[in-house]
This record gives sequence, structure tokens and C-alpha cells, in this order.
Amino acid sequence: MNMQSPEGVIESCLYARDLESAQRFYQNVLGLVLLAREPERHCFFRCGQAVVLIFDDRATSKSAGEVGGVRIPPHGARGPGHIAFRVFESQFALWRERLTAAGVPVEAEISWPHGGHSLYVRDPAGNSVELATPAVWGLEEGTPSGHIP
Amino acid sequence: MNMQSPEGVIESCLYARDLESAQRFYQNVLGLVLLAREPERHCFFRCGQAVVLIFDDRATSKSAGEVGGVRIPPHGARGPGHIAFRVFESQFALWRERLTAAGVPVEAEISWPHGGHSLYVRDPAGNSVELATPAVWGLEEGTPSGHIP
Repeated sequence: MNMQSPEGVIESCLYARDLESAQRFYQNVLGLVLLAREPERHCFFRCGQAVVLIFDDRATSKSAGEVGGVRIPPHGARGPGHIAFRVFESQFALWRERLTAAGVPVEAEISWPHGGHSLYVRDPAGNSVELATPAVWGLEEGTPSGHIP
Repeated sequence: MNMQSPEGVIESCLYARDLESAQRFYQNVLGLVLLAREPERHCFFRCGQAVVLIFDDRATSKSAGEVGGVRIPPHGARGPGHIAFRVFESQFALWRERLTAAGVPVEAEISWPHGGHSLYVRDPAGNSVELATPAVWGLEEGTPSGHIP
């Protein structure tokens, strides 16, 4: 079979009803770059070659808006979702320190039997947010961009 | 500020209670590579330099398991979530044909005013699945790997 799959994931999505707290967490604690913000609807962040979208499900589950006369399909989940961010092995300990310094309790830390490490915290909405090294999925590390948290 | 942000998203997550149907959709229709499967709990897929995790929330919201004596933090959302996959501009029309040929109705197609195109379908669990070209987020295209669907 000559199957083509998508090249990657470009939007990952979580839900939060308190978008200001969510913004503070993703922007100030995790250091993501804010791309857009619409009060009571969403805040969007850039992360590497993709974006992370945080929506208030109360807004997007009814109507997600319209573009050029086309209705954006609604969506909106309730309850804790999950996302994992890719961090360098060499910076894993710094992330642990940074989260603790920011007053974000580490809920779990796992050293996977097949390699790699994960730290788990909660965002203010209760979503399970993981910081994982690429080895968790047998993926290669890129090149650190040089900044240390 | 000398802020370090994560390098990217490594795990994006959706929920589905019928994991067999979800597997067929992500593996056969979208062409993702199956990495792991645990009946009544999850199916995991590779997509580019990241993974897509489909969980049955009934399993993971109670207990997400244990590794080396550490409990994996539980999570599990209900209701339609959202994800977008990155596809090449040059293959956008082929994706539309492929989805239609697979009997997956295109719920919406949007040409964004600032550039880029999106196709929206539903996975069998009702999650909103988008195929988007990088220009939607002002991102650059990579190099097509050569296969045409």
C-alpha cells in the first residue's frame, strides 16, 4: 500500500473554563508563546512547529464560529484531558526545579523501563500535563536552543 | 527573561469508547502507524515526531496504571475533543478525495483569510478531526516524503 499519513500533529487541544488561569500556566510556567486570545472562548499558544489550543468548552461546544460562511465544527470536552510536551533529557532536572519554584506540585515522576523520563503536573483546570523526554517514545532529541530556564 | 519552553508537543490525546472503530479510522483512513494497543484501554499511534493517544476514559479516569511503583496520573474527558493534523498544501485535494472515498463525510472545508486550508471530519467517537496546511498557523511546509495517498 502506498499510504500517506499526515506529516504530524499541528493542533493539540485542551479545555479550561478559567482561561486566565490557563493562560498564566501555559505562558508563565511552561513558557509557551501566546498567539491569540479571545476572552471566554480560547487562548492559543505556539509550541515548536505546532500550536496548543485551550478552549472553554461552553463556548465551542455550541458554536465554534464561522469563516467565509462556513461553520467551524463544534467540539468541547469536559473532564481532565492529557497532553505531553517534549523536553530535553539534559533539562529534565531543571524543569522539575522550575515547576516546584512556580508552586506547581509534581504529581508523579516516572522513569520508564524502556528509557526516558516523565514529570506530571496539573494545569489549573485539572488537565494532566506531562513533560517527557523523547526517549519515552523512542524518538531522537533535537538540538537544545541554548536557553536554560 | 531567559525562558525555556518545551521543544514541542510529544503526546496529543483524544478519547473514544469504541477503540476498535477508532483504530480503524486512525490507522486505515488517516494512515497513522499503530504503536501499541490495549483492548478496553488505549490505542497509540505515531505521527511524525510525536504520538497520538486514544484512550477509553472509563479506563484511564479511574486508574491510568502504575510504573515502578509510581501511579500514572489519571485523566479522561468526555464529549468531542479536537485535533488537527498537518498535511501538505500540494496534497490537500488528495486528502479530500481519500476521505470521501473512505466514506468519511467532510463536515466543513475552510480557506482561511490569512492563508491555509482546513478539512474537518469526525472520527467514529465524534471527535473533530482537522487536516490543516501549515499556512493556517503561519508555519512552513516540510518536504513531502514522496508518497501520494
